[in-house]
Amino acid sequence: MGEFYLEDCKVGDRFQTASHTITKSEIIAFAREFDPQPFHLDEEAASRSVFRGLAASGWHTAAIAMKLYVTSGLKLAGGSVGFAVDELRWPIPVRPGDTLQSEIEVIGTRPSQSKKNRGVIRIRTTTKNQRGHAVQTFVASVLVHRRP
Amino acid sequence: MGEFYLEDCKVGDRFQTASHTITKSEIIAFAREFDPQPFHLDEEAASRSVFRGLAASGWHTAAIAMKLYVTSGLKLAGGSVGFAVDELRWPIPVRPGDTLQSEIEVIGTRPSQSKKNRGVIRIRTTTKNQRGHAVQTFVASVLVHRRP
Repeated sequence: MGEFYLEDCKVGDRFQTASHTITKSEIIAFAREFDPQPFHLDEEAASRSVFRGLAASGWHTAAIAMKLYVTSGLKLAGGSVGFAVDELRWPIPVRPGDTLQSEIEVIGTRPSQSKKNRGVIRIRTTTKNQRGHAVQTFVASVLVHRRP
Repeated sequence: MGEFYLEDCKVGDRFQTASHTITKSEIIAFAREFDPQPFHLDEEAASRSVFRGLAASGWHTAAIAMKLYVTSGLKLAGGSVGFAVDELRWPIPVRPGDTLQSEIEVIGTRPSQSKKNRGVIRIRTTTKNQRGHAVQTFVASVLVHRRP
């Protein structure tokens, strides 16, 4: 797959990423650094929480989805610079051993009004677990170059 | 500061977190794991990018804001479980050496319709650098317990 410019992106285009299996130790390491709450750190405490078991931080899921997008999703010329995210949701918890995979759908494209060599695409990212259940969804606005 | 229940949260309440100074090696380490793009990994490549210098991944900024919130922000009974984030924006880049601090403002509170012992608060989180410029803003919906 080559690099994509604004002119290559069409509403309705879909891209499937590779997958990532999240381990218990990854969940705990991320939580220690960024979201040190009992339900992300300790199975026993997590079992008594609203999650009823160890669950990944939502920001960890977001970071993994970014990794999947950057390494195996839509390859934009000049890189993927998202400047706005909306409707970020975590419908169900991510558990140790879950295998996550994202689908990216282009839902809008427009040229920049101020910069002639750029544009913006809107993408919807849905990250699912190995049972096909959505664990995270969001819509992002991403800078994209116009074909020179 | 004790733990907060729904009844303790009022629209207009504001909380200031502690601060975190982000290093170049933190920026690169996070990017290697979750957002391996040249402008997050390498100063020379970053200088030629839209960022015009090394910049933290937006998801790294989000994760740091979570750390600041969890360790020194609004302390909710039972923990902070955000289930929805909207209007997530990164107005300017986060640079190596930036000192980040967040302000959290309660912008809405409501009891749950289905679960009598719970409610939801809406918070606006603004993360600023040492010059007082906002580097990240978002609105989140967070589960909160009702006072027993």
